[in-house]
Amino acid sequence: MSRKNRIRLFAYTPLETGGIYEATEAQTHYLSNVMRLGLDDEVFLFDGVHGEFLATVAQKTKKNLILKVNKKIFDFEKAPDVWLLFAVLKKDNTDIVVQKAVELGARKIIPVRSEYTTASNIKPERLKAQIIEAAEQSRRQDLPELGDFLPLEKLLKTWPQNRKLVYLDETGQGRSFSACAKQMKEPVAFLVGPEGGFSSKELELLKSLSYTSAVSLGHRILRAETASLAALSCWQAFCGDWK
Amino acid sequence: MSRKNRIRLFAYTPLETGGIYEATEAQTHYLSNVMRLGLDDEVFLFDGVHGEFLATVAQKTKKNLILKVNKKIFDFEKAPDVWLLFAVLKKDNTDIVVQKAVELGARKIIPVRSEYTTASNIKPERLKAQIIEAAEQSRRQDLPELGDFLPLEKLLKTWPQNRKLVYLDETGQGRSFSACAKQMKEPVAFLVGPEGGFSSKELELLKSLSYTSAVSLGHRILRAETASLAALSCWQAFCGDWK
Repeated sequence: MSRKNRIRLFAYTPLETGGIYEATEAQTHYLSNVMRLGLDDEVFLFDGVHGEFLATVAQKTKKNLILKVNKKIFDFEKAPDVWLLFAVLKKDNTDIVVQKAVELGARKIIPVRSEYTTASNIKPERLKAQIIEAAEQSRRQDLPELGDFLPLEKLLKTWPQNRKLVYLDETGQGRSFSACAKQMKEPVAFLVGPEGGFSSKELELLKSLSYTSAVSLGHRILRAETASLAALSCWQAFCGDWK
Repeated sequence: MSRKNRIRLFAYTPLETGGIYEATEAQTHYLSNVMRLGLDDEVFLFDGVHGEFLATVAQKTKKNLILKVNKKIFDFEKAPDVWLLFAVLKKDNTDIVVQKAVELGARKIIPVRSEYTTASNIKPERLKAQIIEAAEQSRRQDLPELGDFLPLEKLLKTWPQNRKLVYLDETGQGRSFSACAKQMKEPVAFLVGPEGGFSSKELELLKSLSYTSAVSLGHRILRAETASLAALSCWQAFCGDWK
């Protein structure tokens, strides 16, 4: 099995070389029944704190699978300090945004309720499971944090003012990404509105704050989920760790 | 109804001020039964050649709807000369790539069969319908062309050599996007492999060609559809018309 295709799982308890990891029930089912691993088969494990380890199946019963943690293969590394705040969308599109934000290296993902947000709730457990799955597949070491689902105004009231908040302005008032790339150093956050955009009241509020700036992604209308991915991609390429 | 929410449709026949447009059967159903437009209600029309026009409902029967083309509101404008070549994915992900490539301003979209491509066919009519829908919603004036579904090798044999072909190299051999942005001037094309990446034979072939270059989008593994969107976004922001 090539390095690439090897199984990589998130460990819910801390890992160390020489230690063991007891797979959860769902992981046991996946490793035993879906992937049909046997004794001594290899798995990569990461715990979001200590890095990534090579482990082998050491014990296996029907309901229980224990892995021996053999050696560290990657040191722990955090994704760059960029957050994504996005107005919650219909279920499938919220899923897409969260999954892609993990791949694109957002350190924190915050679902937001804005005036024109039509979705009224999120399922944090479901989103957390998706974050873990996307982190496993994207081979990132850290697990992005999922922020609480908050109304935009409330979120802004407690905003850490040293973090620049860049909102995507569909009204054409924002500067181009390339023109402001140099002012988007870490720590930074992107804020993407819902399909209907921000209300004029929200735009006024955002404009009035000292830590915000407006950016435009061209004159074609992007769907909200596309805008989230585009902003994170451009940032990683020109300010983040794709450089 | 605000400018933003107004209906915008692709016209399958050429438009001119003072002329008429006969809606297709599907458009008639949409305008009459879904959107419940009446006489004199306004619609935006674009034909992919002459620009965008404001039209009003002039005649309406059960099966037929005729629009009067009142005035031109936007001149015709082509998206920048960037193509997207992507190894065909599972149906839903192919749909996502095509829809987003339209939003992100690709001028031509070419589905490709590579060695590790698992999907064996595409439905061109279905994809063309999605291209039209995405163009309507993204407010772009031109309709991106859908290329034939071809094996990668065959496509490379007839490649227009003045067009730079930038392939996304997951092996880490590529240069960073920001480092090669200046060498990616129009006309340019991005090539994105399938989930399994390119085969070593394909990578050798790509490397050997004079008009290609390899780019890397960081060390996290991106899903194929994410890589397509990220490449187009970065290009538009730093080389294309988001500048």
